Amino acid sequence: MPKYKIIIEYDGTNFVGWQSQNNGRSAQSSLEEAIKKLTKEKVTVCGAGRTDSGVHAKGQVAHFDISKDFKTDNIRDGINNYLRPLPITILKVTKAKDIFHARFSAKQRIYEYLIINRRMPLTFQKNLAWVVYKKLDVNKMKKAALFFKGKHDFNAFRSIDCQSLTSIKSIDYCSVTNDKELIKIIIAAKSFLHSQVRIMTGTLVNVGEGKIQPSEIKKILETKKRSKAGITAPPQGLYLQKVVY
Amino acid sequence: MPKYKIIIEYDGTNFVGWQSQNNGRSAQSSLEEAIKKLTKEKVTVCGAGRTDSGVHAKGQVAHFDISKDFKTDNIRDGINNYLRPLPITILKVTKAKDIFHARFSAKQRIYEYLIINRRMPLTFQKNLAWVVYKKLDVNKMKKAALFFKGKHDFNAFRSIDCQSLTSIKSIDYCSVTNDKELIKIIIAAKSFLHSQVRIMTGTLVNVGEGKIQPSEIKKILETKKRSKAGITAPPQGLYLQKVVY
Repeated sequence: MPKYKIIIEYDGTNFVGWQSQNNGRSAQSSLEEAIKKLTKEKVTVCGAGRTDSGVHAKGQVAHFDISKDFKTDNIRDGINNYLRPLPITILKVTKAKDIFHARFSAKQRIYEYLIINRRMPLTFQKNLAWVVYKKLDVNKMKKAALFFKGKHDFNAFRSIDCQSLTSIKSIDYCSVTNDKELIKIIIAAKSFLHSQVRIMTGTLVNVGEGKIQPSEIKKILETKKRSKAGITAPPQGLYLQKVVY
Repeated sequence: MPKYKIIIEYDGTNFVGWQSQNNGRSAQSSLEEAIKKLTKEKVTVCGAGRTDSGVHAKGQVAHFDISKDFKTDNIRDGINNYLRPLPITILKVTKAKDIFHARFSAKQRIYEYLIINRRMPLTFQKNLAWVVYKKLDVNKMKKAALFFKGKHDFNAFRSIDCQSLTSIKSIDYCSVTNDKELIKIIIAAKSFLHSQVRIMTGTLVNVGEGKIQPSEIKKILETKKRSKAGITAPPQGLYLQKVVY
């Protein structure tokens, strides 16, 4: 049976998240329905990362198997056609080897968080970025970000609902850049704990506000206590940007 | 009476345009209503450029007079508060001299047109860019853009509804740049004819498709016939970017 690897973008505002749930429309179920309309086959689409409700993707990866052999461009255009008018689009389809698994074969997940630091409410990026009204000290945020790099116990930086058996994670990359009012945080790791990127981001914003000093990040990691880290950044600024295999 | 100059951004998708009309909500009337709620005064907001329905602004400029003397940041925040949840925001307020007029004092208007050249429908920029599915030759578009610069009779590049007495206009600047799938056209002039930027853009896209050769732009200008120019680009890719005084 041919296996297809797809790269997907979606606006997560009105989805319950990547994963299918009983309380609304998910990115996953939207894809499964569109594939069924095109191929008449019932498939399960397996994604690389389970984004939360309101979180977006510009490079989510998933795989599925169907019995019919399609040309990759044709299956992309066909599924995209059945996805309209939903805000989810397949950017690329390639044929994958039997052993490929979107979730388990992934070597790195890259998330991007967009903050717009200005006094005025958002017009064009409402639901697509986090507007922070108070002026942030970006240099402090850049310094703080350096303390996240490497292997640490991230117990202080995971949701209390997180079910992962271990809280030890290795951050490959954590950077803060800015251009005028836009602040971009990029964080890459093989895998993340529940809400880890959002708590890391919220803590960096607390650093930018002057509530936490950059060097305190190290101490917060050592406490392993969620209450010592900063706020959880809202979902609308977060994008699953790329998955590396 | 204090005169205020405001810089405004708006998503024009659901507006009938800048100017107040009987058939729906305009950017102008939205501002006038919010100012009335804040100040209890009925004002006329005079804008620099009358954008069409579906056209956006990132730097529209307008002025109005009210009897009360506000601090500029306070009036900005106050009006923005009453504008919610509409997709229109005041970015900046300054006090202007009596002789300032948003429309008549303007020395240059800068428009930007965003094209996304890809096979897949848009997810994040639906209504905020023109998606062109056929691969465009950007180098040809760049060459063609050079022929627009300077003073010409733009009769071939205005809507048949245009009521301007003269069709002679001077283009200060016309450039095409690209970055991956995004093509950006920037056109600056003291003033424009009705639909001029959209017809210039549509013609540049026809050049990119190979339907018109770059050097033909000169001949099309000389014919002064609308039928010789290209298509009118749709409104959703167009932004009034800046007004220079």
